Amino acid sequence: MRFKVTLEYDGTDYHGWQIQPNGRTIQAVLEGAIARMVGEPTRVVAAGRTDAGVHASGQVVSFSLQCPIPAERLLSGLNALTPADMGITAVDVVSEEFDPRRAARSRVYTYRIWNARWVSPFWRRYTWHVPRQLDVDRMRAAAAFLVGEHDFSSFQAAGCDAEHAVRRVLRSEIDHTVPLITYSIEATAFLRHMVRAIVGTLVEVGMADRAVTDLPALLAARDRTRAGPTAPACGLCLTEVKY
Amino acid sequence: MRFKVTLEYDGTDYHGWQIQPNGRTIQAVLEGAIARMVGEPTRVVAAGRTDAGVHASGQVVSFSLQCPIPAERLLSGLNALTPADMGITAVDVVSEEFDPRRAARSRVYTYRIWNARWVSPFWRRYTWHVPRQLDVDRMRAAAAFLVGEHDFSSFQAAGCDAEHAVRRVLRSEIDHTVPLITYSIEATAFLRHMVRAIVGTLVEVGMADRAVTDLPALLAARDRTRAGPTAPACGLCLTEVKY
Repeated sequence: MRFKVTLEYDGTDYHGWQIQPNGRTIQAVLEGAIARMVGEPTRVVAAGRTDAGVHASGQVVSFSLQCPIPAERLLSGLNALTPADMGITAVDVVSEEFDPRRAARSRVYTYRIWNARWVSPFWRRYTWHVPRQLDVDRMRAAAAFLVGEHDFSSFQAAGCDAEHAVRRVLRSEIDHTVPLITYSIEATAFLRHMVRAIVGTLVEVGMADRAVTDLPALLAARDRTRAGPTAPACGLCLTEVKY
Repeated sequence: MRFKVTLEYDGTDYHGWQIQPNGRTIQAVLEGAIARMVGEPTRVVAAGRTDAGVHASGQVVSFSLQCPIPAERLLSGLNALTPADMGITAVDVVSEEFDPRRAARSRVYTYRIWNARWVSPFWRRYTWHVPRQLDVDRMRAAAAFLVGEHDFSSFQAAGCDAEHAVRRVLRSEIDHTVPLITYSIEATAFLRHMVRAIVGTLVEVGMADRAVTDLPALLAARDRTRAGPTAPACGLCLTEVKY
């Protein structure tokens, strides 16, 4: 029996998705909970392998079990066996062929910036604190240049093992509820640190340290050193995986 | 010089507002930060003395200083000297007579319920987790009965030192963004544990353990034992004080 599990996690205290020799990871904690529940070692595959400190409100993972178990029981059992910074929101039975990574049509990430002089006690774990006032209209105009199919080499981290850097961005928008700036980007797939490099660049535009119209040239350059810095992990959240 | 300071805090790790012989309190932490900044012991008065574990996103406090200091400097200085679970959002200069408690026209509290089978890692510190499904329309209808001037003795904690229990409720509404249920109540003033006793009662209505139309009789009874249990502190937040 194969399951599709949707989950949330506060990534602050995790060393990212993937199992590592040292450090607590989402994969290790989740596989541990499944093993305790069903008594068999289980390998879990995720739609998006989030980096250290990155959050998720709509991560999708999949795994197969030898013993049949009702989805409802798996939902309550896994919620009881996972720590407080992880929550299982849905469990569905899927076909044995289901691969959450390959089957995904698109992923949605949000990046939150807290643009105020004070740090909010409620948002400090989930936002990048930028005290200098940002021009959101400039950022919005710059973000719009990213929609469509482009080579995103300028926003790709060194060591990214992708075969090529062409990705199709379906949505690249900014929502502003003062003092919270939320950047949402939906794409077929993402390169390593892509959203964070984009946000680091958009913040430069918002500070008027970079021209709005710099974005097309930046894409054409295919040179990571030309784009802005990588924004901190804490502001990033994988919000949805669409199938 | 007298100042009006607006602040936010995550109440989880505080023993409420008021200074106590043992335990970390909002008042003690704030007065400590002011003393470190200006070098004079200062007494701070709050618009609402929140209980242990209760949060605030719009608490208002006031204090006077002998030495003149620009409001801007006080804002950045206090933000630097207060811990991460407290944030100063605004500082204004006010007249020497300003009393944040007496001058307040009304207060707004919100109470958040997380109505899902799983606990959200993002909301666990700021919501009451109620796994059983609540009928929000029933809760909304019951909440509407509280608007107006009523004797709230049925929703008053034992040991409340108020002279009488008559309060004017200006707004009593429920917002539902599945699975988050947010109850907002605005009143001229509140009795001790009043919002939490109301929420405990509304949840009974939402579970159909109590009739919607029970509310008018409950107000008339003036008997705390007839109302529902006191909801946990973690869901409550003082969101605004109006002047």
